[in-house]
Amino acid sequence: MPRPKPLSGFPEFLPGDRIVEQRVLEVLTGVFELHGFGSIATRAVEPLEVLAGKGEIDKEVYVVRRLHAEDESTDRLGLHYDLTVPFARYVLENAGHLQFPFRRYQVQTVWRGERPQEGRYREFTQADLDIVGADTLGDHHDTEIVLAALDGFERLHTELGFPTVVMRVNNRKLSEGFYRGLGVTDTPAVLRIVDKLDKIGPEKVAAQLVSELGLSAEAAGQCLALAGIRTADETFVDRVRALGVTSDLLDEGLALLSELVRAANALVPGRVVADLSIARGLDYYTGTVFETELAGLESLGSVASGGRYDQLANDGKRTYPGVGFSFGISRMLVPMINKGLYGASRPVPTCVLVAVDDEESRGRAVEVATQLRARGIASEVAPKADKFGKQIRHADRRGIPYVWFGSAGSGAAGEVKDIRTGEQAPADPATWQPAPDAVRPQVRATPA
Amino acid sequence: MPRPKPLSGFPEFLPGDRIVEQRVLEVLTGVFELHGFGSIATRAVEPLEVLAGKGEIDKEVYVVRRLHAEDESTDRLGLHYDLTVPFARYVLENAGHLQFPFRRYQVQTVWRGERPQEGRYREFTQADLDIVGADTLGDHHDTEIVLAALDGFERLHTELGFPTVVMRVNNRKLSEGFYRGLGVTDTPAVLRIVDKLDKIGPEKVAAQLVSELGLSAEAAGQCLALAGIRTADETFVDRVRALGVTSDLLDEGLALLSELVRAANALVPGRVVADLSIARGLDYYTGTVFETELAGLESLGSVASGGRYDQLANDGKRTYPGVGFSFGISRMLVPMINKGLYGASRPVPTCVLVAVDDEESRGRAVEVATQLRARGIASEVAPKADKFGKQIRHADRRGIPYVWFGSAGSGAAGEVKDIRTGEQAPADPATWQPAPDAVRPQVRATPA
Repeated sequence: MPRPKPLSGFPEFLPGDRIVEQRVLEVLTGVFELHGFGSIATRAVEPLEVLAGKGEIDKEVYVVRRLHAEDESTDRLGLHYDLTVPFARYVLENAGHLQFPFRRYQVQTVWRGERPQEGRYREFTQADLDIVGADTLGDHHDTEIVLAALDGFERLHTELGFPTVVMRVNNRKLSEGFYRGLGVTDTPAVLRIVDKLDKIGPEKVAAQLVSELGLSAEAAGQCLALAGIRTADETFVDRVRALGVTSDLLDEGLALLSELVRAANALVPGRVVADLSIARGLDYYTGTVFETELAGLESLGSVASGGRYDQLANDGKRTYPGVGFSFGISRMLVPMINKGLYGASRPVPTCVLVAVDDEESRGRAVEVATQLRARGIASEVAPKADKFGKQIRHADRRGIPYVWFGSAGSGAAGEVKDIRTGEQAPADPATWQPAPDAVRPQVRATPA
Repeated sequence: MPRPKPLSGFPEFLPGDRIVEQRVLEVLTGVFELHGFGSIATRAVEPLEVLAGKGEIDKEVYVVRRLHAEDESTDRLGLHYDLTVPFARYVLENAGHLQFPFRRYQVQTVWRGERPQEGRYREFTQADLDIVGADTLGDHHDTEIVLAALDGFERLHTELGFPTVVMRVNNRKLSEGFYRGLGVTDTPAVLRIVDKLDKIGPEKVAAQLVSELGLSAEAAGQCLALAGIRTADETFVDRVRALGVTSDLLDEGLALLSELVRAANALVPGRVVADLSIARGLDYYTGTVFETELAGLESLGSVASGGRYDQLANDGKRTYPGVGFSFGISRMLVPMINKGLYGASRPVPTCVLVAVDDEESRGRAVEVATQLRARGIASEVAPKADKFGKQIRHADRRGIPYVWFGSAGSGAAGEVKDIRTGEQAPADPATWQPAPDAVRPQVRATPA
């Protein structure tokens, strides 16, 4: 086979960068489990009719067919393009075996046949977090899921040195209640136009609200004023009140959002911003909506988004409302790693290379490695009984911090060399400890 | 959506069973890393020309195409049907960035469009372990990879109560050297016929060796005698010698296999059997071959197989020889779980449900849960401020072992009830510890 080339839109990591991805997923899934979310994994394919009918995404589906399928009409399957659709199907299929509210996380690959570009891939990894109820789901779960997501990002910050986040939250009820208070009936249309604020600017948004929806110039101004409110605490409530618009739905939205901001600030101050311009593109959100940016890496866009949807699934008898978060793992990590911002301290799990004196004594080296492994120290035996200088260079090239010598000597004692410092000292495989930061590869920000 | 039905051949686990799968993968990948294997993940698709040309597997490939692709000829991609082909491609593509011998493990889904049956799925998870060299790869790596695989199974046995394994090993050089010593030239043809021993029996094998390959009745008898040798230690060498056949390649094969059996017995006595009938179907194995059965679950077939292939990949300039093992995770776990042999002690990660006195004091319950989580105790807050009896029943249905009360009381102290025993005692979220076996769900054999 000639040397293969990468496939555009299908990113793969080198081993060291894969360690970064593994550690990020380990931190996040650890937090999800601490918050009582269990893992599920769904098959990669769904019947096309389950995937279809979502408008814009339709054309991006990858169809899957057996190479020598006898009949074109059988096996109309496609690869899933998100983890929400398969989760909804899983909930309906297994509802009788699940306890509600059901809390799950799911880390899997998804596929979209989009044109590849920076931060947009054809194959990418998502980590989804959802709580789904049967018939009803308390509003407090919106706060709960935000706290779990924030806790995850906070640990990426404290444990791996990732940037802090700014989570921008809003509530559809707040915006919709406000528009209703203004006398607008087609509130989704207002949301759609206001959502273009970043792209077309306030003048054009105001103009469209007037020309397309027949709002008065004053009402359009009020909509813009609402979208301009952005506070890191609950003072947004006063600023909305000051606009003089009232409705029951607005009151409900204000109460929900201020409780969420209060609770988030109690857990980790300064990460959440009530941003009343956030609408989220997808139509199925019905309450809280969230977006998350990494401080200093805003150009990546939102790396974790979600919201409340009152109708995640429906089997004709029951409705399953949910609230969820989707972490764009590849979307966040591929650019961060490609920019060289984060890396692993070494590209291998191995902590110790046990040197081999000669092929006859390889068994003794294996025994040393076995003893070290039994104590949780990842070890491998040198591939060749080369001169020690060459074995040290092999460890160095692989990024292994320690080389063990003298396994063939009498007694348990050998010597271990820290090849980063050059220090060498007598050591017993039954008791020796590597430096704490050398036991496993560390993930760290790369100095600029 | 009406209630969906499972897709035949695409198994999915309920949350409790998924915990079994997670724990199995955690144990195995932990062992792989202790042995110095790093993780890689490859994309799910490969160009069809990379996947094609493997004869029998050809027809089982799933082709992947964008639903609205303009041009049939673009994107000729298929889902990978194993992890060896993508690994070989990854090695060629990234050879300049890898250090050889390169040691990797890879846990991913693979797809085959076969007819689904017990133990055969269209989508399943494999865990592969390989060492690959550039140009050369020492024979001792065959032993090394067997020790790593055995260590993995041994920990599944001691940590999760899985059955012990019987690993059956052979070496192609031994068989081939023996056949050459008998004067046979078409040794692969002999291997192919002897490989049918289990299916057609010794008489028919002997008859085919005579009629199809022209062997003498005596030589055919010698081939059968070789295939009948099965020893748990190195005595197979004497039994082969007693057949009176000699060749240099036979000597080499005997030396390699006896070293492997010796080393494996030194690590874990009694798990490895030299079984000179093992051939393995695939043509690319050139040395050691292995198969693994679970004791008492032999009907599952081999759950981990592999061997040495002198030509894993070749880019025209360099050859990359390898030795590897593939663990059939789904193949092993789906039947074991469906038969009800193994399960998790609870279907959720949650250790504590913090009860809620009333909605006004929910924030206090969240604080207790936050304190417990900070100490590594997975906790969730009750979804509704129902009567305590109802909240306890909710914990019971979800399988959560502890319920925390009194979070709204003054001071830090509350009370915690072990709902398995009914015991209730005062507890402080800053110091309380659950029973060690209740911190995480345990995987265990289900009593018959």
